Amino acid sequence: MFSQSAEIDRVFHALGDPTRRAIMEKLSEGPISVSRLAKPLSITLAAVVQHLQVLEKSGLVHTEKTGRIRTCRMEPKGLSVAEQWIGDRRSLWERRFDRLGDLLAEPDES
Amino acid sequence: MFSQSAEIDRVFHALGDPTRRAIMEKLSEGPISVSRLAKPLSITLAAVVQHLQVLEKSGLVHTEKTGRIRTCRMEPKGLSVAEQWIGDRRSLWERRFDRLGDLLAEPDES
Repeated sequence: MFSQSAEIDRVFHALGDPTRRAIMEKLSEGPISVSRLAKPLSITLAAVVQHLQVLEKSGLVHTEKTGRIRTCRMEPKGLSVAEQWIGDRRSLWERRFDRLGDLLAEPDES
Repeated sequence: MFSQSAEIDRVFHALGDPTRRAIMEKLSEGPISVSRLAKPLSITLAAVVQHLQVLEKSGLVHTEKTGRIRTCRMEPKGLSVAEQWIGDRRSLWERRFDRLGDLLAEPDES
């Protein structure tokens, strides 16, 4: 329970930064090398690497080095963790509204 | 564009905290007074109020005072912002896989 909570903490924290979301937006188009990823971001390569580490630790990105080139790709597992938590909240909330609708539709017996 | 980015920042940041997620989990069951919400959380009422302010600013919660009682309820708008961002990333990523599948299914003309 605690470990899952820490995992969700990391995913939401990672996505709460506009540069990291920009990286995820780029990676959703396909794998890319770190240097090509860094080019349009107008921050240092070291800063990009730091952001990638945060994304990798939260299960949102996977990086792999082949020769001298490090390639990164989106890892959908991390997104699923966040998606499921949000979906669970929404479905509970919507079920509550359905029950309310049923109650209002019942004939008044008083 | 910038204002929407700041809005998504706030939503993901707010959800990156286990106490705030516990509050959202409770609120997805229905509206509740701040004091009843605070009881099982084993933190001070002041801390709960601070967390609620973060959630309210990010559009995830709405609070309203009637007489001496402040009631809070989940606001699904904030969740939709996060849900849509994640969904957009996932669908782009899946479309990429579909295109890859189409390419692999094409007869080899070489």
